[in-house]
Amino acid sequence: METQTAVLEALSDIVGSAGCLANEADVEPFVTDYRGAYRGKAQVVVMPTTTAQVSQVVAWCHAHGIPMVPQGGNTSLMGGAVPDDSATAVVISLRKMTRVLAVDTINDTMTVQAGVTLSAARTAAENRKRLFPLRIGSEGTCQIGGNLSTNAGGTAVLRYGSMRDLVLGLEVVLPDGRILSSLKGLRKDNTGYDLKQLFVGAEGTLGIITGAVLKLMPQPRSTVTAFVAVPCPASAVKLLNEARMLSGEAVTAFELISAPALDLVLNHLGSVQSPLQGRYDWMVLIELTAGTEEEHLNNSMMELLERGLEHGWVVDGAVAASLADGQLFWRIREEISDAQRYAGGSIKCDISVPISRIAQFIEKASAEVQSLEPAMRMVVYGHIGDGNVHFNPLRPVDQDAREFLARWSKPVSDLVDDLAHAENGSISAEHGIGVAKRDSLEGYKAPVELDLMWQIKRALDPRNLMNPGKLLPLNHRAPPADQ
Amino acid sequence: METQTAVLEALSDIVGSAGCLANEADVEPFVTDYRGAYRGKAQVVVMPTTTAQVSQVVAWCHAHGIPMVPQGGNTSLMGGAVPDDSATAVVISLRKMTRVLAVDTINDTMTVQAGVTLSAARTAAENRKRLFPLRIGSEGTCQIGGNLSTNAGGTAVLRYGSMRDLVLGLEVVLPDGRILSSLKGLRKDNTGYDLKQLFVGAEGTLGIITGAVLKLMPQPRSTVTAFVAVPCPASAVKLLNEARMLSGEAVTAFELISAPALDLVLNHLGSVQSPLQGRYDWMVLIELTAGTEEEHLNNSMMELLERGLEHGWVVDGAVAASLADGQLFWRIREEISDAQRYAGGSIKCDISVPISRIAQFIEKASAEVQSLEPAMRMVVYGHIGDGNVHFNPLRPVDQDAREFLARWSKPVSDLVDDLAHAENGSISAEHGIGVAKRDSLEGYKAPVELDLMWQIKRALDPRNLMNPGKLLPLNHRAPPADQ
Repeated sequence: METQTAVLEALSDIVGSAGCLANEADVEPFVTDYRGAYRGKAQVVVMPTTTAQVSQVVAWCHAHGIPMVPQGGNTSLMGGAVPDDSATAVVISLRKMTRVLAVDTINDTMTVQAGVTLSAARTAAENRKRLFPLRIGSEGTCQIGGNLSTNAGGTAVLRYGSMRDLVLGLEVVLPDGRILSSLKGLRKDNTGYDLKQLFVGAEGTLGIITGAVLKLMPQPRSTVTAFVAVPCPASAVKLLNEARMLSGEAVTAFELISAPALDLVLNHLGSVQSPLQGRYDWMVLIELTAGTEEEHLNNSMMELLERGLEHGWVVDGAVAASLADGQLFWRIREEISDAQRYAGGSIKCDISVPISRIAQFIEKASAEVQSLEPAMRMVVYGHIGDGNVHFNPLRPVDQDAREFLARWSKPVSDLVDDLAHAENGSISAEHGIGVAKRDSLEGYKAPVELDLMWQIKRALDPRNLMNPGKLLPLNHRAPPADQ
Repeated sequence: METQTAVLEALSDIVGSAGCLANEADVEPFVTDYRGAYRGKAQVVVMPTTTAQVSQVVAWCHAHGIPMVPQGGNTSLMGGAVPDDSATAVVISLRKMTRVLAVDTINDTMTVQAGVTLSAARTAAENRKRLFPLRIGSEGTCQIGGNLSTNAGGTAVLRYGSMRDLVLGLEVVLPDGRILSSLKGLRKDNTGYDLKQLFVGAEGTLGIITGAVLKLMPQPRSTVTAFVAVPCPASAVKLLNEARMLSGEAVTAFELISAPALDLVLNHLGSVQSPLQGRYDWMVLIELTAGTEEEHLNNSMMELLERGLEHGWVVDGAVAASLADGQLFWRIREEISDAQRYAGGSIKCDISVPISRIAQFIEKASAEVQSLEPAMRMVVYGHIGDGNVHFNPLRPVDQDAREFLARWSKPVSDLVDDLAHAENGSISAEHGIGVAKRDSLEGYKAPVELDLMWQIKRALDPRNLMNPGKLLPLNHRAPPADQ
């Protein structure tokens, strides 16, 4: 094993000394996740500025058997982007690769380096009157490379898909340093295995994404937003179906919000009031957007809400009368995450089930979790148009956050994951696996799936140097190939 | 090696004797492709009815070292679904696996066996007032398993995507007979490598798709179709961009048609007349669909055509005044393929380039091809909204088809492929590789891409028994993994 000094020297030769960090204080932000839940150690943090540099860094680490941890904005909730505590790894941060390389408004594509933040990408699109539709809370910090590596989702998936659906080409540095480049921006290319699919959602375990061609969309010409009270999640699902039947792809977002989630936000924000007069157990934020005039879309929304009232799926509702109204509705939705962090003692379960099973999942999970501790607050929200529920039980008002988490985190997570699994669901809809759920996977995936994952991993990274210890359950290894 | 009798006996034990064919006449349709361009030999054709049977058949072939050729509707244009002439292979036909297992109108998904034809899948969706949007000429014969294995595209990709975008889960029998099953119908599931992506577009080289969960869409409530003359492909691209800006996702199809393509169809169909009075070099078939009323969509189309006329991108146009009109426009587009087969002597090039480069590609390719033989007819058409051009030079009227193809097939294909590649394009946009383009791939893909393809192939099918000789260039093998 090389000494830290030798590593630092070798990597400085590649990226320059300003591109390498080794003292503890400098390295600290790269070895700790943003919630402070995961903390590791690194020999060196290296910040290349070009793909060629990434390639050389990786080739050097590969040749010397040094584990590598690729890192984007370090906003993972699962510990996917920080090293373990062995102090053997080099963190390869993409934060200096921030160039938007091209915007093609005829092909409707944008070519970016992996370190471009999501908000910078959205802005680059907007500047050319296009939409890059991915929308998640951490957009100011998270990076396109990380969004791709985790197949990020967010609040516009219903209409535009996840990151996998938004990418046309990738440039990747493989675990041995070779560069795989396919930045052509083609919408159709059936010439062999679609290799880019391997790296989307692989959490950096198969290589480092250094660049991407992203799809751009027409900007919507009009938006109508409503904040609606529904009697129960089952009604919300019915309303969602009606919305899709009435206005098809215009349904851009359909977000469920439970009363405890709303209370938490209103409490957190202080001055903000609920868009609705009454207090309701369940609400839905609906956004329709279209390339047509506002009036038309307004009619669709009114028709939807009328039908909802008629069938009893809607009990109250407010349609945004102004841009500011719409922004307020969204602010309420988007602050749930921060409000939970502020409140402390939130158990995060990011599950998905088929849309047809959401209602029964929520009902069962709420009942079973509350039977453990009736005073837990059921902060439940999410993208029900994708079958994705953030089911985040919150500590009772009078309990200490730390004690609550120590006692309940594991039993509640296990219970919720088991219930999601029983409903044909997933234990991680959009947050990924990282370290947090790595070993749980064994309980929920068939051995053949885990075998295949390891077979792919071994084929691309036989020395297990690329983001080791993430995503793939350690106890499950593929049998050797029967050559 | 087992004798044919032994193979037949073993497979009959699994699927019953009615599920096995071995005599030459019975086997014939399974070893010849539908254009008669590829012809091979098989020991036995086996037609399982369940996934368990497929699994047992594959396990038996794997144990006995027998190559397997999975086959759907056998409509490949590239020789991807027929065996080679070694007479060693077993053809595994999915044609008896034709059950639609479930239609979930709340989750908007449909679960099917792989042998369901595309038209049967579309009908099953329609019967529940949903749309399964894949639309290709061979829909009555081609099967969902084959559509997935070739990542089929067609005329609605612009709006709904290719087959890869339309699938939520797969059931696959791996080359050793194990079953990988993920038929949950989840829209979000970030729990490890998205294994199904490996099998979409793999042309049966990594396993046999036996079942799938497909996405369903709301049926459009209105459709407006126009047949428009444009001065040149560059104008068509400008019109496409305007259409996307004006009406966003309402643009469902945008199909370019050259004059020789139209002439060929009108000649072939006899009684049908061009929708336009004049004769024009280039035309575009535009379809807008939406979940809104007809009137609104009509306005969008009129606005588009007015702007087109204003800018000189449109020189004439007809908007379908009735359903029958619209069907006629589509019939003209859809008959191009048959008309070419009927005419004989058509060189098929299915390329894609970035949309921003379509015009220059068509211009260059036409000029260079015609400089070889000025009397060739430039049958050029396709899905320019996806950058996909079917560039199919047709024999001069007075030349014999066979002689023409013998002389010009290779030089024209190579020239067109080279030009597409030079424009950052693909030599196979949607038809795949099969045998036809297998060895050409070496000239167009970087060694690292071919290495990775072989690494994946070897990881999943180390004995190379699953559809051997398809897709992967024979001369290029991956270096052994450096364990």
